[in-house]
Amino acid sequence: MAKRTAQDIRRRNRFDALRCVFAAAGPVSRQEVAAATGLSFATVANLVAELLEAGVLREAGHEDSKGGRPRARLAVNAERGALVGIDVAETSVQVELFDLALTVLRSVRLPLPQNDVRPDDVVDAIVTGVEGLSDATGASPRILGAGVSIPGLVEREGGVSVFSPYWSWRDVPLRSLLAERLPMPLYLDNPLKAGTVAEMWFGAGREVDDLLVLTLRAGVGAGIAVDGALYRGATNSAGEWGHTCLVRGGRECRCGRQGCVEAYVSTRGIARTVRELDAESPLLDPDEDAVVSKVARAAARGDAVAVEAVARTARHLGEAAADLLNLFNPQALVLGGWVADRLGEPLLRQTRDVIAAHALPATLQALTFQLSTVPDNPVSLGAATFALEGFLDDRETFGTVAAGRRAAREAKARTS
Amino acid sequence: MAKRTAQDIRRRNRFDALRCVFAAAGPVSRQEVAAATGLSFATVANLVAELLEAGVLREAGHEDSKGGRPRARLAVNAERGALVGIDVAETSVQVELFDLALTVLRSVRLPLPQNDVRPDDVVDAIVTGVEGLSDATGASPRILGAGVSIPGLVEREGGVSVFSPYWSWRDVPLRSLLAERLPMPLYLDNPLKAGTVAEMWFGAGREVDDLLVLTLRAGVGAGIAVDGALYRGATNSAGEWGHTCLVRGGRECRCGRQGCVEAYVSTRGIARTVRELDAESPLLDPDEDAVVSKVARAAARGDAVAVEAVARTARHLGEAAADLLNLFNPQALVLGGWVADRLGEPLLRQTRDVIAAHALPATLQALTFQLSTVPDNPVSLGAATFALEGFLDDRETFGTVAAGRRAAREAKARTS
Repeated sequence: MAKRTAQDIRRRNRFDALRCVFAAAGPVSRQEVAAATGLSFATVANLVAELLEAGVLREAGHEDSKGGRPRARLAVNAERGALVGIDVAETSVQVELFDLALTVLRSVRLPLPQNDVRPDDVVDAIVTGVEGLSDATGASPRILGAGVSIPGLVEREGGVSVFSPYWSWRDVPLRSLLAERLPMPLYLDNPLKAGTVAEMWFGAGREVDDLLVLTLRAGVGAGIAVDGALYRGATNSAGEWGHTCLVRGGRECRCGRQGCVEAYVSTRGIARTVRELDAESPLLDPDEDAVVSKVARAAARGDAVAVEAVARTARHLGEAAADLLNLFNPQALVLGGWVADRLGEPLLRQTRDVIAAHALPATLQALTFQLSTVPDNPVSLGAATFALEGFLDDRETFGTVAAGRRAAREAKARTS
Repeated sequence: MAKRTAQDIRRRNRFDALRCVFAAAGPVSRQEVAAATGLSFATVANLVAELLEAGVLREAGHEDSKGGRPRARLAVNAERGALVGIDVAETSVQVELFDLALTVLRSVRLPLPQNDVRPDDVVDAIVTGVEGLSDATGASPRILGAGVSIPGLVEREGGVSVFSPYWSWRDVPLRSLLAERLPMPLYLDNPLKAGTVAEMWFGAGREVDDLLVLTLRAGVGAGIAVDGALYRGATNSAGEWGHTCLVRGGRECRCGRQGCVEAYVSTRGIARTVRELDAESPLLDPDEDAVVSKVARAAARGDAVAVEAVARTARHLGEAAADLLNLFNPQALVLGGWVADRLGEPLLRQTRDVIAAHALPATLQALTFQLSTVPDNPVSLGAATFALEGFLDDRETFGTVAAGRRAAREAKARTS
């Protein structure tokens, strides 16, 4: 049975209150936070007091409340500290430094070896990136934590890369390896989870509770948010949609099975579609990301092969997504990842038509379908958000010690 | 954003505490409830006081606590009131009367017309059933509520049968129609949701938080529990797994599409498999439920067609389930419904092998897979559980009025 301690509930409320401040266009009042979260004013006042004391929020002026007592406005205290978000991809590592409001301060991309990438190569690239950014910032605020996204299956608690699809790693204790060389708290997860959390804090997830995020890159996955929380499943592998069978006896997939969704709508799948349409197509390129970019540009100028490649991708994507939507009946579906970034509106529009033809009426009734609106790289942003969530969980700052300190101070204030 | 008020949290805690008492083999102490739910002892003591006062729980002796103060034991107060669970199926309506411990007291099954079933026919059958059971119980406890399960899409808040797949109804206000003739609170939902709730309170869901329940009857669905709560989706249609495409261009489905899961593993799908194997098979019968029963018996004695029909059903079921499991990564998968009841262990065993060959290692790692252990009819039991949940939500009994009454009494006790 689910165990939800008072501590869990308090943590969840703290997240919700802070997400609400992040989601707002400008500073907000405690009353607005209470209205948006459904929490009582007293609870919100308590959470805000805690976040103000920890320096995560700051007072940001007052609003006129029509003759009543003016209400204090709150904003994220961007200068409180920095967060690092790291996106380990197949050929490179992107390291980004954020302020506490999750605005990018600096960004660097480091290449990985072309072949035979070992754990040490990844660790070296990350450490070089983080140290470079820290040095460059000079007297900048302390780094409160770093989140690392690495493809494949991740065991979060232990910080282990259980399996990497690109390099066929097994059970690499990546967090321990990094902890030997980096001083800040480290959080490990995969790009699907990172991208979904970014969407929850900064994209379509600000508006809804139940959300699916389809991420189309070299791999394909469906990030799942239920009741405003990331759904991970029993072993943190929920959302493995890429290897759902779409075409029985269809294309071979790198997983060894046939006809998987990923074999059709990933960068590799789209490159293969182009090759099937015209084996001599000038759109082909050894770099599959480049193929997708070329298809996008060529389709825009009416190139027949590119137009047909987009149409076929939309058909496969729409049929697969319709089944997924019938199952989850979410409020919002978001399309993200390199493929969605490049193929954009035409892919969205054609996929929407296929979904409309295949999903059940009840599924379509409440659904919004859109491209990701998360700026920049959602994976490094999401990784940094994991670090923020970790900081909000920190017992020194938010645990019983801090509560005791606060109570003592309040008692003193009452007697003085 | 998710709104979880203090009221929501209190309701959820009340459900969890009570589910814990139901799940136990015998009476339990407050300490055991606190340990099982993760709630603090003080919170549990509070919830228990409320449930004792409402008469839902009763004191049931004491346990020896090894020299300490003896701990009071708690049990469900079965005599507090009765609940009704109603399973509206394609050809008949089953009405069952339960005590508050959800033990069946009486049960009746009423036939529906062979053709052209109208809403009035269903309402008449339900009212006849409920009145018959009420009369028979004579001076029995008051009926606290009735849950009605009806196939298809249900709009719960309004109590509307939005769409019925058997009778092609649209927007029938079933709860209003029933409320004109029945005096108790009424709760409407569908068999998939009812069966899943029964599994959560009385089956495999007692042990785990994340659960899938595959229900194979005339229709096929996947009931979803996330973090110990039923997942409904945006329009209460989550779990529509029956019309997931399993075989592109495959069998025609009654939904108008081709190759749906339901076209292979429902009672109708299995009858069709038998017909494809041998159009003259003595296993065939106009009643598709009967075909499945015959297949089960014939397979047990080694009949070649029956054995092959079970093997093909297991292959289709296993392939479809593997994709579903990769997506949800649940702790437990339960197989229920008429098909599972009849084909039982042989279907479970063969399906398990297919899943093992098709699902990802991370999916299989934490998974248990079993037949439903819910006794009797899980749909009417689940419907009665909705009525219990409704009663636990009742503001008169558990709301601020009751809390005020309690506080006043406690204040009086202190001063006297």
